Amino acid sequence: MPGTSPSTAPPSTGAHDAAAGEASAAPGPRRFGRRALLTSGAVGAGVGAAIGIATALGVQRAPEGSGAAVTAGSREAEPFGGDTLPCHGPHQAGIVTAPAAHVRYVAYALREGVDRAALTRLFRILTGDVEGLTAGVAPLADSEPELAERPSKLTVTVGVGPGLVARAGATAPGWLAPLPAFERDRLDGAHDGGDLLILIQADDPLPLAHAARMIDRELRSFVTPLWSQQGFRQARGSEADGTTMRNLMGQIDGTVNPDPSESGFEELVWIGEDGPAWLRGGSALVLRRIRMELDTWDQIGRVAREQTIGRRLSNGSPLTAPPEAEEHTPIDFEAKDAKGLPVIPSFAHARRAHSEDPSERIFRRGANYDEGGESGLLFACYQRNPLRQFVPIQRRLDELDLLNEWVTHTGSAVFAILPGFEPGELIGAALLEGG
Amino acid sequence: MPGTSPSTAPPSTGAHDAAAGEASAAPGPRRFGRRALLTSGAVGAGVGAAIGIATALGVQRAPEGSGAAVTAGSREAEPFGGDTLPCHGPHQAGIVTAPAAHVRYVAYALREGVDRAALTRLFRILTGDVEGLTAGVAPLADSEPELAERPSKLTVTVGVGPGLVARAGATAPGWLAPLPAFERDRLDGAHDGGDLLILIQADDPLPLAHAARMIDRELRSFVTPLWSQQGFRQARGSEADGTTMRNLMGQIDGTVNPDPSESGFEELVWIGEDGPAWLRGGSALVLRRIRMELDTWDQIGRVAREQTIGRRLSNGSPLTAPPEAEEHTPIDFEAKDAKGLPVIPSFAHARRAHSEDPSERIFRRGANYDEGGESGLLFACYQRNPLRQFVPIQRRLDELDLLNEWVTHTGSAVFAILPGFEPGELIGAALLEGG
Ligand code: HEM
Ligand code: HEM
Repeated sequence: MPGTSPSTAPPSTGAHDAAAGEASAAPGPRRFGRRALLTSGAVGAGVGAAIGIATALGVQRAPEGSGAAVTAGSREAEPFGGDTLPCHGPHQAGIVTAPAAHVRYVAYALREGVDRAALTRLFRILTGDVEGLTAGVAPLADSEPELAERPSKLTVTVGVGPGLVARAGATAPGWLAPLPAFERDRLDGAHDGGDLLILIQADDPLPLAHAARMIDRELRSFVTPLWSQQGFRQARGSEADGTTMRNLMGQIDGTVNPDPSESGFEELVWIGEDGPAWLRGGSALVLRRIRMELDTWDQIGRVAREQTIGRRLSNGSPLTAPPEAEEHTPIDFEAKDAKGLPVIPSFAHARRAHSEDPSERIFRRGANYDEGGESGLLFACYQRNPLRQFVPIQRRLDELDLLNEWVTHTGSAVFAILPGFEPGELIGAALLEGG
Repeated sequence: MPGTSPSTAPPSTGAHDAAAGEASAAPGPRRFGRRALLTSGAVGAGVGAAIGIATALGVQRAPEGSGAAVTAGSREAEPFGGDTLPCHGPHQAGIVTAPAAHVRYVAYALREGVDRAALTRLFRILTGDVEGLTAGVAPLADSEPELAERPSKLTVTVGVGPGLVARAGATAPGWLAPLPAFERDRLDGAHDGGDLLILIQADDPLPLAHAARMIDRELRSFVTPLWSQQGFRQARGSEADGTTMRNLMGQIDGTVNPDPSESGFEELVWIGEDGPAWLRGGSALVLRRIRMELDTWDQIGRVAREQTIGRRLSNGSPLTAPPEAEEHTPIDFEAKDAKGLPVIPSFAHARRAHSEDPSERIFRRGANYDEGGESGLLFACYQRNPLRQFVPIQRRLDELDLLNEWVTHTGSAVFAILPGFEPGELIGAALLEGG
């Protein structure tokens, strides 16, 4: 499966790599030149090669000489900063790759006059930056290459809105538009839409912040920033790998989700023959900013909180299974209690969100946010067609969901996530050829 | 040394602990009752006992059933979420304990009418919350106890401003006041001062967010929020433990710092006989929000950037040592180059910040911030007396520092960090007794 095997960067040899093209003027870490790599098809293979040998640059540094700097001793593992995820493959990284601890969505509007030729320049720059940053090899234009050296599984995932598709002279699918309004929506206008989405994820906030800034700087002559949202899950290593995240309501969030290895996942998530040619291998992202009203949530008892979802707070197991049951024990929506009432309340979130139609499912990938005195969920999901997958689910929730009393949707965005790309190719190549 | 030995919480026995007092009404994880613990001197020892057995609650959860959830395999260490740092001791935790990956400063103003009796109630609640949250045992009032279970070395450090000292009927030291204005200050008024500081640190942003919200909710009848600032360092585990952090300019930041194990540290950082009785064992925190002008910083070359500080970007070694020298190689301020010019420029930051007077030193503990399109350093330092330590250093920098072109101080706060406390004692006990 592409984009799923992390590799540890080998220690630097300290030598400049000839294949990596130009070296920077001042003495410093190894870089690769975007121009050298991308303007000639002949060096296409060189990109992969240069990136394949992504190195943890920099001299090995000694720990801070502080008697109080305590280490957990025995449990320390090898540092993970050098870990990389491949950016190449049939699909972009950052969608089915293991969820990172930190995530940032940055949306831009195209500047006036950015035509198809300019878009090609934009995507050439972006492609070079993504290849470099995810591999831990700073692009030439990077002034703080050391901040790029420890990518900690950095991924950059690129999406486009209808405005960009039009500028490229291509046709956007019908779903690539603002979602239909829902009754309970309270969009604040500050977290909606955009022409270009840069989604950055990493297990360390430092390379993430750096990558966001580098890309921002590189794109500024083409785009203006619209909004940015930062989220988090449990820190890497704080729980066993693969542990489902908890949201700020305390719930285990993400249990029932299509498995990328299951048959049928392709049809649910990756755009195929039914979509425009430029999107095949891509996906549709719906991002909703959902505020949580935690002060009132705190006022209801634990039993009521568990019934709101239909699952236990302790371990996420369904209320229809014994308390010691495991998180992934199937939920039994038919189960009745002694009085003949449904164990999972009729309007419990898990029941209302559940799709009887297996083709109506979505691939969720949320994250928590907590800033400026507001907290909630950056609800993200991937699918072939939001109008047939996210929308019917959200219609049911909007109409009736016990959770509604404590959640309010304040932001909404839909982006077409571009297909994957291979060494020597540009991100969005098919789109730039006019779809 | 207190507050420095992390312990891993043993797995839960699943049984409710008699020593821990009341159990919560609804079935759920173990809690301890604040009242049971703190209103009687006789159970004082019980607090320590209850906290000593801080447990990682909750049923062991199975990893998410996703084929794409990749684990780094061989390098995985035991999850660190259960790690705790003791909150008790002669000094509060969070000052000389190993710097955490995530940090949040939250400042409050006391409500009108909060007198010494109300302050005692406030500190009783706060003490219980700090003891519970840092130990991974949710206080009774916690509605999301599962979010408290994996503290990931959570610390809560409490500081007070002059307003609170006055309400307690005690006398504030002269330095507990806004700092003298500096020429280049551009304070935005949104990150200054306060009556009460809650400083929360953890290696995981989730328990940090939860602890901040719990404490906020508990204190709301006594205080109103003034400002909050969140910062980060490298993720735990991304580098070898004890690695000095990098700031967003790419520099290794924190190399030259007094060592808590060195003789004389006590006199530099912990308030002694010369301070008010209620502060003995405490410290003085100066927090400066310093914006970085990274766009223009990017425009100067690597050599100029290194000369701005006097140290290498690669590994932090001084420019007076060979490039392969180690970060902690002593800097030689006297060294001259072939032309007889100082190798460390006269106005390099490391030179200007360096104190010839050993009693003028500060204990730095910064963190990066990056939000709302602005990035910079949450510069924090601890000392006995800011007027004799931070201020003379900052005077020199304010006057002349090559770094000044790219940094702007926009926030400033001084807090008296209260002394440590032992089981059965209240945080701020000596202050509440009128100093
Ligand atoms: C802040 C808002 C939300 C919260 C706190 C929340 C929380 C949860 C929780 C705790 C579960 C049960 C565990 C799991 O399977 O993940 C769940 C399930 C689910 N949620 Fe949400 N959710 C929110 C919004 C949404 C939205 C907006 C949608 C889509 C429109 C959605 C779709 C689903 C789906 C499809 C399931 C699985 C249902 C099944 O068992 O088949 N959720 N959610
Ligand atoms: C954004 C602003 C700042 C940045 C980027 C910065 C960066 C640095 C760097 C890279 C070093 C060298 C490595 C080290 O020893 O840590 C350093 C040293 C130092 N800085 Fe700063 N600094 C800033 C602000 C300040 C301020 C406001 C003060 C105090 C008023 C200060 C005090 C010091 C001290 C005492 C040293 C050690 C000097 C010595 O070698 O004795 N810095 N700083």
